[in-house]
Amino acid sequence: MTLVSDPVGPWRTLASDVPYRGRRLQVHRDQVLNPSGLRIGYDWVETDDQVRVAALVADRILVVEQHHYLVGPLLQLPGGRIEPNEEVLASAKRELAEETGYRGGRWTSHGWLYPLPGLTKMRVHLWMVRNPRPGPPSLEPGEDDLRVHEIPIAEAASAVAAGRVRCAPSAALIMLAVGAT
Amino acid sequence: MTLVSDPVGPWRTLASDVPYRGRRLQVHRDQVLNPSGLRIGYDWVETDDQVRVAALVADRILVVEQHHYLVGPLLQLPGGRIEPNEEVLASAKRELAEETGYRGGRWTSHGWLYPLPGLTKMRVHLWMVRNPRPGPPSLEPGEDDLRVHEIPIAEAASAVAAGRVRCAPSAALIMLAVGAT
Repeated sequence: MTLVSDPVGPWRTLASDVPYRGRRLQVHRDQVLNPSGLRIGYDWVETDDQVRVAALVADRILVVEQHHYLVGPLLQLPGGRIEPNEEVLASAKRELAEETGYRGGRWTSHGWLYPLPGLTKMRVHLWMVRNPRPGPPSLEPGEDDLRVHEIPIAEAASAVAAGRVRCAPSAALIMLAVGAT
Repeated sequence: MTLVSDPVGPWRTLASDVPYRGRRLQVHRDQVLNPSGLRIGYDWVETDDQVRVAALVADRILVVEQHHYLVGPLLQLPGGRIEPNEEVLASAKRELAEETGYRGGRWTSHGWLYPLPGLTKMRVHLWMVRNPRPGPPSLEPGEDDLRVHEIPIAEAASAVAAGRVRCAPSAALIMLAVGAT
């Protein structure tokens, strides 16, 4: 299962344009040659990377519940957007503290995932922290309805298997956390 | 961990616009009241739902490897875009057959995930198939570099844990498949 190590790859960019610039996202429209040599238009989205955190407190994991504008009520691991010029680990610690109040502990990186590699280069960086200390949360504007659950890790894995954790990076990281405990 | 059953939720849409319409994606710009009662502009992306398939052949799982325009070489489960008016299961069977040649077998749904619930309502539908039969693949234009690997399921789980399966829905579904076998 060794990956082809061709650093260039079979795609070629012929031209680029940015037909939409918003505050949260930009749309790029490239003219490309695909691996079959066909010239096509390729629309893609630029948006900030995010972090998700598996915070393990004894045999429990912290899960946040919040209404999302687009998809309604959702269970996720704590996390969010990485601010401009913010280090990834600093962002993970900030988001965990803001949403749950937990701080400190032993942090380990679990790499990153591409949520939608055909649509965006955006990455969700995965972190795990063991035994952080509880404290007061400091929610951002718009997160007033956020609730924090402390769930036995095996129960969180069952929730993923039952389709109750719909956020893809959160679901993957919960399953990785089960394997790591 | 029961979800709030408020079917409406704390967000309100005040106005909607579509500032970009492409072939693969549309950008919506809504004016909304967030859960704190603040009026904000909310950009989001509309794009077609996808499917991913965990195809289990004895103790092995089928993994495809392909160069992506945006992110380079990538390991994923077979899958792709659901065509207009296509049933989800029909799409899963079509994508598996096109990419790997495998057909038939016992199919079960594992729900769906939101890859990026803050950016798009788009869903990735998860399916599992046991003991499909091999046959000739029929790749779409642009997929000439696609390669199929048959990997022991435990090795696939290790690849996810080692950060070698970067596609978030694929990573989650591999971990779910491990738990289901």
